[in-house]
Amino acid sequence: MFDWQLHTRIVCGAGALARLGELARGLGTRALLVTDPGIVQAGHLGRAEAILQAAGVATAVFAQVHENPTTADVAACLEVAQDFAPDLLIALGGGSAMDTAKGTNFLLTNGGPLSDFWVASPSRRGLTQPLLPTIAIPTTAGTGSEVQCHALIADSQSHAKMALGETGAEPTLALLDPELTLTLPRSVTAQTGIDALVHAIETAVTKPRTPHSLLFSHEAFRLLSSSFSRVLENSSDLEAREAMLLGATWAGLAIEYSMLGIAHSVANPLTAHFGVVHGQAVGVMLPHVIAFNAEDTTTRRAYAALGQSPEALSEQVTLWLQQAGMATTLGECGVSGEAIETLATEAARQWTASFNPRPVTAVDLAGLYRKAL
Amino acid sequence: MFDWQLHTRIVCGAGALARLGELARGLGTRALLVTDPGIVQAGHLGRAEAILQAAGVATAVFAQVHENPTTADVAACLEVAQDFAPDLLIALGGGSAMDTAKGTNFLLTNGGPLSDFWVASPSRRGLTQPLLPTIAIPTTAGTGSEVQCHALIADSQSHAKMALGETGAEPTLALLDPELTLTLPRSVTAQTGIDALVHAIETAVTKPRTPHSLLFSHEAFRLLSSSFSRVLENSSDLEAREAMLLGATWAGLAIEYSMLGIAHSVANPLTAHFGVVHGQAVGVMLPHVIAFNAEDTTTRRAYAALGQSPEALSEQVTLWLQQAGMATTLGECGVSGEAIETLATEAARQWTASFNPRPVTAVDLAGLYRKAL
Repeated sequence: MFDWQLHTRIVCGAGALARLGELARGLGTRALLVTDPGIVQAGHLGRAEAILQAAGVATAVFAQVHENPTTADVAACLEVAQDFAPDLLIALGGGSAMDTAKGTNFLLTNGGPLSDFWVASPSRRGLTQPLLPTIAIPTTAGTGSEVQCHALIADSQSHAKMALGETGAEPTLALLDPELTLTLPRSVTAQTGIDALVHAIETAVTKPRTPHSLLFSHEAFRLLSSSFSRVLENSSDLEAREAMLLGATWAGLAIEYSMLGIAHSVANPLTAHFGVVHGQAVGVMLPHVIAFNAEDTTTRRAYAALGQSPEALSEQVTLWLQQAGMATTLGECGVSGEAIETLATEAARQWTASFNPRPVTAVDLAGLYRKAL
Repeated sequence: MFDWQLHTRIVCGAGALARLGELARGLGTRALLVTDPGIVQAGHLGRAEAILQAAGVATAVFAQVHENPTTADVAACLEVAQDFAPDLLIALGGGSAMDTAKGTNFLLTNGGPLSDFWVASPSRRGLTQPLLPTIAIPTTAGTGSEVQCHALIADSQSHAKMALGETGAEPTLALLDPELTLTLPRSVTAQTGIDALVHAIETAVTKPRTPHSLLFSHEAFRLLSSSFSRVLENSSDLEAREAMLLGATWAGLAIEYSMLGIAHSVANPLTAHFGVVHGQAVGVMLPHVIAFNAEDTTTRRAYAALGQSPEALSEQVTLWLQQAGMATTLGECGVSGEAIETLATEAARQWTASFNPRPVTAVDLAGLYRKAL
């Protein structure tokens, strides 16, 4: 049984940024732009500001977004927001910019602290006051945060990574313009692209999957798998860039409904202990996860609905990693065999492990790490 | 470029009808049920009424829905509605029940005549007053009207078939319960199933197709093509029934964004002149339409994105018709060669012909009829 209402309006196409003024005017008159220094340097922020001002929308800018944003980052953005009193937020950047904007929105409209909105907190309180409308403009094809209701924010003190938010807290509008992804460095295209591919593949098999999450998983995989090699070969292939961007958005929607599996459980400890970048971490583990999960017959069929056998899919993931110049073994990532017990114990505790189609123990996960060494 | 906001909440699953009371309570307190005598006889209306009354929703019933509803049918329903003064409409049935409810909604809230809302009318006026909320509960897996903003109503005088409505006039909620389709006669399962399959295939290639219409076309085809034989073989296969019902809904959404092609253009004159049932008419013509369109390279690729070559797809459609006990030639449908010129002239005038991926003339269409003879 599923019960589905899509909250985000999605506008997509090459050059769609030109519509930002008109779209923003429909939602507010004072926009706070939340972005990072790389986006400023690439000239995207300047263009967005000019378009907004031409449409009569007053703007202020917070351009200090950091990767993996913390409660301190959100506090800094909130200060700018409280000074400016916007009636509209516009996030321009990757997942970090969007998450910083979401966290700021929660505090601005509902008060704090942010941990009040942490899904895992026993003292959680809901969002009782309406949020400001938000336009999310992704500049990477990766997280899918532009259509998701949660923000990932780390507590500056405890370092706990908190998922904040609830259904209904999705951005009002996702503006997808593949031209904004043309200038991405190859390594970012590769890492975020693999991440999006893993989203499409994991959501296609997780336990909570439903017919409406599969709608998005399957089309995401079709778009991403047919375009990833193309954007690596030719970074200015606009058609392939659009397919990657939209594929990442569809995969992001699939996550909203079906969660993720153990490729994410085993990846997070690799990032925490060895600094392995997220896309690399999920990518290197996925072929072994597929082999493990495919021993279950129903899950085998769920993989096959992506259009190829689990074995062919595993091989394809490894080929993509090679083509992207990414590591295909944990050894290449600097991970040593002695760490495996610790990694596996932590992986078994990850939330995502509970959504995996096949039940897993720390022993199973240690086996996956060993195979990936 | 696409700009997409999904207006209809979709609730789907075996037994979902049990949630009707709670879902209706969220939308109103006085519900007019619009249905047909077959649904009453099947016991579905009685169940729906009992569920609504148990939830404290007052009900009235209009059970005189006819196939291919006319302005006279809508006028009859309007009379019941005006007496009862509902704050919620519930359509329970096939496309005809949903279209009758939509037409009634237009008149009840915006005044008449219905032709005021005809998309093809030069004197068209928009819906300026808010519509009543509507719950659409399809009992066939076919039209997709439960997620569409238009109603097809024939003018009782001129017999013109009018598409009435505009974006925003979609049902508020589509309630998809495959249990309601278990009692369908085999011939209805077959005709409506082929119709839904043709929707999925045509929308995958039409000129106005966009990435978000393809999202729905592709998954619709995957669901329908893997389930059609199963529901024919075993009418009580609930999993396959759900896949058909949801596939028809996804295909209906695809039509909203990408329109239909010449399988529909050539089918309508067959129905008008020879009384060929719609599903039979589109089904018998589709293999020839696919062969014609696939001569264009881009269209060939668009068919292939469904997962098989256009040639294999054509053959598969013919196999489905055979399995369903439906005709595979126009000869079997009682169509004679002399009618072809007239049929082709009328087919070329159909609105759907303008959305076909390959431009067509009456001569081309006559060629398709000849091949299908």
